[in-house]
Amino acid sequence: MLRRTVPATIRLGLQRSALYRLPPQTYARLSLTRYPTVRTYAATNTSTEAPPLFRRFRTFARYTFYLAGSTLVGCFVLTGAIFLHDAFTYQERNVDRVPVAPRALAPERGGPKNLPIVSRLLSDYEDEENRALSDKPHLVIVGGGWGAVGVIDKLNPGEYHVTVISPETYTTFTPLLPSAAVGTVSIRSLVEPLRKILARVHGHLINARAVDLVMSERLVEVETVVPAGTQPTRMYIPYDKVIIAVGSTSSTHGVPGLEHCYQLKTVGDAQAIRKRVIDNFEAASLPTTSPEERKRLLSFVVCGGGPTGVETAAEIYDLCQEDIFNYFPKICRKDISIHVIQSREHILNTYSEAISKYAEDKFLHDHIDLVTSARVASVEPDKVVYTKKTADGKVETHEIPTNFVLWSTGIAMNPFSKRVSDLLPNQVHKKAIEVDAHLRVKGAPLGTVYAIGDASTIETSIVSYLLELVDEADKNKDGKIDFEEWEIMVSRIKKRIPMAEGQLQKVRELFDLYDSDADNSLNLNELAVLLQEIGHKITALPATAQVASQQGKYLGKKLSKVAERSPVLQANGIGPEGADEFVAQPFRYFHLGSLAYIGNAAVFDLGRFSFMGGLAAMYAWRSVYWSEQVSMRTRALLMIDWVVRGIWGRDLSRL
Amino acid sequence: MLRRTVPATIRLGLQRSALYRLPPQTYARLSLTRYPTVRTYAATNTSTEAPPLFRRFRTFARYTFYLAGSTLVGCFVLTGAIFLHDAFTYQERNVDRVPVAPRALAPERGGPKNLPIVSRLLSDYEDEENRALSDKPHLVIVGGGWGAVGVIDKLNPGEYHVTVISPETYTTFTPLLPSAAVGTVSIRSLVEPLRKILARVHGHLINARAVDLVMSERLVEVETVVPAGTQPTRMYIPYDKVIIAVGSTSSTHGVPGLEHCYQLKTVGDAQAIRKRVIDNFEAASLPTTSPEERKRLLSFVVCGGGPTGVETAAEIYDLCQEDIFNYFPKICRKDISIHVIQSREHILNTYSEAISKYAEDKFLHDHIDLVTSARVASVEPDKVVYTKKTADGKVETHEIPTNFVLWSTGIAMNPFSKRVSDLLPNQVHKKAIEVDAHLRVKGAPLGTVYAIGDASTIETSIVSYLLELVDEADKNKDGKIDFEEWEIMVSRIKKRIPMAEGQLQKVRELFDLYDSDADNSLNLNELAVLLQEIGHKITALPATAQVASQQGKYLGKKLSKVAERSPVLQANGIGPEGADEFVAQPFRYFHLGSLAYIGNAAVFDLGRFSFMGGLAAMYAWRSVYWSEQVSMRTRALLMIDWVVRGIWGRDLSRL
Repeated sequence: MLRRTVPATIRLGLQRSALYRLPPQTYARLSLTRYPTVRTYAATNTSTEAPPLFRRFRTFARYTFYLAGSTLVGCFVLTGAIFLHDAFTYQERNVDRVPVAPRALAPERGGPKNLPIVSRLLSDYEDEENRALSDKPHLVIVGGGWGAVGVIDKLNPGEYHVTVISPETYTTFTPLLPSAAVGTVSIRSLVEPLRKILARVHGHLINARAVDLVMSERLVEVETVVPAGTQPTRMYIPYDKVIIAVGSTSSTHGVPGLEHCYQLKTVGDAQAIRKRVIDNFEAASLPTTSPEERKRLLSFVVCGGGPTGVETAAEIYDLCQEDIFNYFPKICRKDISIHVIQSREHILNTYSEAISKYAEDKFLHDHIDLVTSARVASVEPDKVVYTKKTADGKVETHEIPTNFVLWSTGIAMNPFSKRVSDLLPNQVHKKAIEVDAHLRVKGAPLGTVYAIGDASTIETSIVSYLLELVDEADKNKDGKIDFEEWEIMVSRIKKRIPMAEGQLQKVRELFDLYDSDADNSLNLNELAVLLQEIGHKITALPATAQVASQQGKYLGKKLSKVAERSPVLQANGIGPEGADEFVAQPFRYFHLGSLAYIGNAAVFDLGRFSFMGGLAAMYAWRSVYWSEQVSMRTRALLMIDWVVRGIWGRDLSRL
Repeated sequence: MLRRTVPATIRLGLQRSALYRLPPQTYARLSLTRYPTVRTYAATNTSTEAPPLFRRFRTFARYTFYLAGSTLVGCFVLTGAIFLHDAFTYQERNVDRVPVAPRALAPERGGPKNLPIVSRLLSDYEDEENRALSDKPHLVIVGGGWGAVGVIDKLNPGEYHVTVISPETYTTFTPLLPSAAVGTVSIRSLVEPLRKILARVHGHLINARAVDLVMSERLVEVETVVPAGTQPTRMYIPYDKVIIAVGSTSSTHGVPGLEHCYQLKTVGDAQAIRKRVIDNFEAASLPTTSPEERKRLLSFVVCGGGPTGVETAAEIYDLCQEDIFNYFPKICRKDISIHVIQSREHILNTYSEAISKYAEDKFLHDHIDLVTSARVASVEPDKVVYTKKTADGKVETHEIPTNFVLWSTGIAMNPFSKRVSDLLPNQVHKKAIEVDAHLRVKGAPLGTVYAIGDASTIETSIVSYLLELVDEADKNKDGKIDFEEWEIMVSRIKKRIPMAEGQLQKVRELFDLYDSDADNSLNLNELAVLLQEIGHKITALPATAQVASQQGKYLGKKLSKVAERSPVLQANGIGPEGADEFVAQPFRYFHLGSLAYIGNAAVFDLGRFSFMGGLAAMYAWRSVYWSEQVSMRTRALLMIDWVVRGIWGRDLSRL
């Protein structure tokens, strides 16, 4: 043993607490100095004669022990800090006098239906910040999903008086709804109250459902959502700018019996599904249930092979594999069947082919029944009927007895979008409100009505701008477009409709292809054909959270800029109808990739690359969703949910 | 600086990772040895010239830094371990052939209603353990609350074939329901699936509601709880022993309009209350709500000043103080009123006087309106009407406009208890099933039907045992009881009815008091009066979780003993009717104290001591409930809930 003296530190203030962190040799030395009787013991124990491997192990064990000790102490300190913080959160606060705008207490009536017009809200005058905001332009956001949260996220505080109209009081992290439906994560980990999200911009929530839009007077008509036993009322919310972000409902495709199906768009849906799944297992394990009935109760049918359908099927499979198995009669596990009915040839058909194949193989391996190229004919209370063409072209009808059907195929307009679409004669799209590249609703007064997310679709028709485009590009005013002018025109189109970019890569080839009379210039007829065909080739943006969120953020940034630069706009005599073009480029979508969970495995479609695999991919899938949470609160809760699942399994309680 | 050499440890395997944990002097020394150029720097920086206070601080800072670093590393290691564990929880399991008892697949019919008799369950033959159990005595537990869980907790595995009949699939930690009702804790932190609790004893759950008891054939008639759209079925569950632990419903006291009230007995109730509370706040913050309506929406009425009522009022107060304040218009906070209507003179009247006073003072300080000595006359959809006697004896009628009424006053029998009570002619109690001191239902075949918890009440009538007691005690058979014999009798009574103990303390005084003819012996008439009066003085056990849990555990232990000692019982020719007395003493309740939360303060009534106070008491209150959780899972979730509340506030989402 090497000779050394007691380190200076242990003679300082922290002597006792620091002691345990010194290498044992020091103890030995300490003993030598203070307690000469233990000399022999110390000398034996720290002898250099010990074999090197043993010493190595001893050192390792020692440091592990120190590390664990320090961690424990650190955790205690942390716990203490949490307690201390917690103790300061129990406060008393008193409210004596709250100034309220007289107009908020007694709104004047007006509009086509002579309803109260809510130009001041209850909290508008309650403090200086709110009072200052109440005279700013009123921005009304209809809906509380991805689009709305995106807008709020990017708005500068202090520029707009923001009001959100939503029948729900919270926003939902929709991509994890399939997980919540089987209890892998808890429902409250997916929601964040809109009032908390709005706090940053001092915004307001009106817990109501939008029913109509009066564009001439800039009013949104809403019907309040009230406690049972109370009468709902209607009122107008005036706006300077309104954003329609109401999402969509599921498309019925004209299939009868959809009232027997579940959807998966809200946390209420997830709760109902969870209850039904557990209900089915409980009923199946009753001794009086007949074998056929048991098979029916344990047959889960998902209509639609998109990400939601695939993920729900995978989550139900996981639930059965990992949790049901342990607590229900084993015969139940044996009788489980999961079916996915897809109208296309493959599931996940919007993803890359490799991914689609991988998912199908995984499902095959898991004995999940994939029914592709089939159409659901009807849904009955106790079964699903579908048709499938055989190889020789005949149409065969099949039935799956079941007590759980999830319907997740495509989108349709919800009543408010439908109403807005009906109000405007030039709205012809059947599934969503058409907007221009600046996300302004087509046909509505420019710069006042916007629509984003599932509720909207960006127009892809270039031909309707034909004359305008020719006017801009035809420099020599000969009514024809030569190649130089065509190049100008292409850049104009790209600016106006960024989604057309992909179709306009080969400028020369296009010009030559459509120059049918080969006069080295395009006349109006030739141009019309060209633009129409290009328009048809543009694919609409998918109805995903990613698109809605990006559109919301784009609009939030743009509206902040409009407000910031309003002096410049005024000086240039630019009204709301031209402000968008003045401050910002049209909306441009950046596809960050698609991902899906397929049962202890996950797939990523990142455009050029596909990435798929087992557990590692699943953890990656989780971390992507984790990083996209709206708040640290949901982030923490989600992490806890995953850890809790690992330790104690899924939540099997039916509630 | 003292001279020292490099410790041996850093030359060993862990050199690099261990380096940062050595005191900086070591670095300095290291430098001296290996890099002579930094000698000056090292010497200056670790100079002993630094003032002692500074050095002390530096040492402190240094150790804090080490501690934080080690904690971080420790946490990383822990996270790694959790991940590693998590990765192994994603398993694949396959089920090929599951043996099922033929009788489970096709139960024979019988009983008074010719229903299926379920003598074998689906999982009875699925493995060796279950097969062995299926021939053991069948123990059927009706209900899944505190009593049932207490029984399961103390049963030895392998002694009984256990079946729980419950309409819910989980057990609930009822004392925290008021917290869950306002989002302080999450609902899923209070529930634990019964199937998980039953796993230890290989028990079975039948998700059904008990409707009738056929004691002659030892059958429980149940009606299944099934998914919507499916027909419920009825069947018989045969038993050797049945335990009735179905709890209670709220007593109506004949008040009309209770359908407009909320109860707080299940998680469903807590969810409904939470929804209504948030609904009320949302509706109150709508601009078209009139001031009177706003006051009505924000008026919360609790009928009943017991612990549930008081805690709910306190939790609603907390919610308003700590969370509503931050996110709703301030005028809402101003208009909140909370009312507690109590029929007695004081709230918490079963607690000590000091506690009752403390709670009342706290509520006074918090501006919670206490209406004592008042009777609720009726509940209407928009108000509560109550009467109160004035000082001069007149009865005044008052009204409180409200949109939320909680009814929590006393208990009544639920339909199954009522049915059992009606079946037995000697059951006369109106609020619960009468049981003897061994918790056996009075009038039912001894040793086969038990009742525990709120559903039961232990009989306190001693006089009904008069002749039996005299027979046992009258040693000289003179038909009279002298003092010596009276002492024997007292010990017999205490053994038979432990609850009478309190009334039998003063043996001599009692004897002299009731010996009306002063002949130094008690004749039958004198004894009858004595026993009757003592019986009246015994107070029944309160309808609390504590009583139910202790009764359940007592019964679990006793039934395990009965099974264990069955060879001895058989050898002695003792059938079920005498087994209870043979193996165990009668049930004896140990009051561990009562506690209640009263809004960032808590009170404890520990019998002789009372303890009450602010935050410290609240933390103590939490730790008591925390330690009483049924599983580590709910314990962890509860702790997380409390931490989450401290950091991010209560969950304000309406779901």
